[in-house]
Amino acid sequence: MRIAELSQASGVPVATIKYYLRAGLLPPGERTAVNQARYDEAHVRRLRLIRVLRDVAELPVGSIGEILAAVDDDALSLHAVLGIAHAALGPPVPERGDGEMAVARREVDAYLDRLGWRVSAHAPARGALAHALVRLRELGLRVSPEDFDVYAEAADSVAAWELERLDTGMDREGQVEQAVVGTLVYEAVFTALRRLAQEHHSARRSG
Amino acid sequence: MRIAELSQASGVPVATIKYYLRAGLLPPGERTAVNQARYDEAHVRRLRLIRVLRDVAELPVGSIGEILAAVDDDALSLHAVLGIAHAALGPPVPERGDGEMAVARREVDAYLDRLGWRVSAHAPARGALAHALVRLRELGLRVSPEDFDVYAEAADSVAAWELERLDTGMDREGQVEQAVVGTLVYEAVFTALRRLAQEHHSARRSG
Repeated sequence: MRIAELSQASGVPVATIKYYLRAGLLPPGERTAVNQARYDEAHVRRLRLIRVLRDVAELPVGSIGEILAAVDDDALSLHAVLGIAHAALGPPVPERGDGEMAVARREVDAYLDRLGWRVSAHAPARGALAHALVRLRELGLRVSPEDFDVYAEAADSVAAWELERLDTGMDREGQVEQAVVGTLVYEAVFTALRRLAQEHHSARRSG
Repeated sequence: MRIAELSQASGVPVATIKYYLRAGLLPPGERTAVNQARYDEAHVRRLRLIRVLRDVAELPVGSIGEILAAVDDDALSLHAVLGIAHAALGPPVPERGDGEMAVARREVDAYLDRLGWRVSAHAPARGALAHALVRLRELGLRVSPEDFDVYAEAADSVAAWELERLDTGMDREGQVEQAVVGTLVYEAVFTALRRLAQEHHSARRSG
């Protein structure tokens, strides 16, 4: 298909497609004339993944490029590609190099070991957990990672179910898209449902 | 105590305390001379709550003022005050008045009725859930609120436990602080733990 048709098939404006081509996010089409190229279904799928990484994950172009390079690198396993995408999604960890943060990081590492969870030593979520501990302590609350047990149990059952229902018949592009959407959109779903459940239980208690 | 001592007791700089006094967030101290006033423990507690609303909840001064006015309004029940604080915490719902969003809102309302949850018709989390549905559908995924069941179950058990352990012996100020910290910091805790659990289950499946 020509670029105008690719635009129609993907819903992405021609000018944006040209920008992605220049930025190297979209591989060039097959050249058919000096000023013309032919695109195919792979381009449609790639544009779809770019849209998810940009609109749902709100990632900068640089991070999108890194994830796409990983998708295209046949030497990487699917698990490795998903790990790269997952790490790019954050959650953001405030930069703090102080002593309290270092102590909290060690406590979180020991806690995850006790849970028996196999997670990368560089997972940003380790820092996010440590930062929550520091924050609670700064407010004068006495907390240890064990106070997270109820959340860990809920997270474990949700994640087990999520991985169970992953459609593994998809190509790498589809699986990365699925992982990004699943992680971010369902995060918003859980957050909203927890707020509603809190209100419900508060209403019940107040009679 | 004098303003310098209030600053020391609360950890809030004198200039910031003066700003809160001018903005009406902090009630004036008892005047002891033309240029001097005496402050007490109630001021320390109020500064603590302002700090949580500003640093943890990242609320604008206007919203903080509304919550504090509710705390001080003896005509409001504690449940009502907590509801006002809770509503200010979001989650933010993108403004969308289109047809898909209206349909999704009706589906979410019916879903919450089926769950038997008692929640305000104006809870922002209703809109956040509806927006997640719209987002998933825009990506071509066929979803209904029933696909949220696993998350609803996890949210329900977490929220029941959270309300159970609320310290109800605190004054209103303390309870509002507790609710804000609990909602926001533990939201970050669950988000981080879910990401780690996903990585763990992905590692298990990839062997």
